[in-house]
Amino acid sequence: MTSGARGPRGPYRTGIKTREQIVVAAAKAFGEKGYRAASLRQIAADVGLSPAALLRHFESKEDLLAAVLNWWEAETAHRENPDLQGLRAIDQLRMSMAYHLEHRGLLELFITLTAEATNPEHPARDFVRRRYAQVVRTKTDQLLQAVQTGEIPPLTEAEAESDIRALLAVMDGLELQWLLDPNMDLVGTFDRYLDHAMTCWRAGTRPIL
Amino acid sequence: MTSGARGPRGPYRTGIKTREQIVVAAAKAFGEKGYRAASLRQIAADVGLSPAALLRHFESKEDLLAAVLNWWEAETAHRENPDLQGLRAIDQLRMSMAYHLEHRGLLELFITLTAEATNPEHPARDFVRRRYAQVVRTKTDQLLQAVQTGEIPPLTEAEAESDIRALLAVMDGLELQWLLDPNMDLVGTFDRYLDHAMTCWRAGTRPIL
Repeated sequence: MTSGARGPRGPYRTGIKTREQIVVAAAKAFGEKGYRAASLRQIAADVGLSPAALLRHFESKEDLLAAVLNWWEAETAHRENPDLQGLRAIDQLRMSMAYHLEHRGLLELFITLTAEATNPEHPARDFVRRRYAQVVRTKTDQLLQAVQTGEIPPLTEAEAESDIRALLAVMDGLELQWLLDPNMDLVGTFDRYLDHAMTCWRAGTRPIL
Repeated sequence: MTSGARGPRGPYRTGIKTREQIVVAAAKAFGEKGYRAASLRQIAADVGLSPAALLRHFESKEDLLAAVLNWWEAETAHRENPDLQGLRAIDQLRMSMAYHLEHRGLLELFITLTAEATNPEHPARDFVRRRYAQVVRTKTDQLLQAVQTGEIPPLTEAEAESDIRALLAVMDGLELQWLLDPNMDLVGTFDRYLDHAMTCWRAGTRPIL
């Protein structure tokens, strides 16, 4: 019975490992070439498979994209500490920035897919839109939390969302600048920006409004 | 002699017009699908040509990309008034934002090619890097000009560049947000951000440092 149970487990485990290898290779290809331009044939070759063998793991390119997006979300999601509140929760964006600096491939994937997804027909559009809206919502709530606990003077919800949108825009824009010119001081520039935003929020002067 | 001179002029003019049509169709395709994923065959079909006929106007896809980049630069360059100085020169970024709102296709082309060009091997990389560096330089000089004429209190060159980089990052990032979600108040959010930056520059408090 033991050996009978083990029998399928070996190949099953191999299957999971192959699947993971394909997803990592696809993430690299999508980040470097874009989803549309990346070829399944090349991704298969990158992990030593034939295209037909790859299609036994993923039905289609779109199916593979969904797996890459899930993988990307899992890779990036664990980094936020849900116990932090208010400005300290927002301050965690510095960590994200440092993480991106260490994981250029993930950042390139994010920027490339986001830009592609500006096309209404792109298959990653719903995912990217949903995720962006989620981040805006979470960070806006954290800023409003800082108001509720008296950590900072009042802000309307619209003001809070506007500030958070500008803050996230600065992150994306600076990351784009850094991908184009690695000599640029990504972490330092963002740190100074966030320091200033924090100072303004605490002082009740609008940093971005 | 007149008719002899006219003879070649007709087809020559037609050639220029066809070339323009190809460039506009290519700009649309590159913006929607990305440079790599767009196909010459489809671009040719969009203007009613065979691929072979298209290749009589442009030697290669890369050649066509160069023409699109020149066209994009010409379309966007004329909008700055070179006579304005200091903060008033920087203030023209509001116009750029309003222009992008009216020309979504040009903006999509810019964002898509910029994201693709984060790949070191992308043929538009040099153009995008050069252009970005140029904009940073021009706007930083305009901010330092405001210091020199006494319009605003002192800033070091590094501080000025850091502020301008953050300002341009906000523009790019907000534009990306708007392409993903057209309900977002692009011009309003940027206006409030720039108003605040101007106030801080005038007051000598660092908006972004």
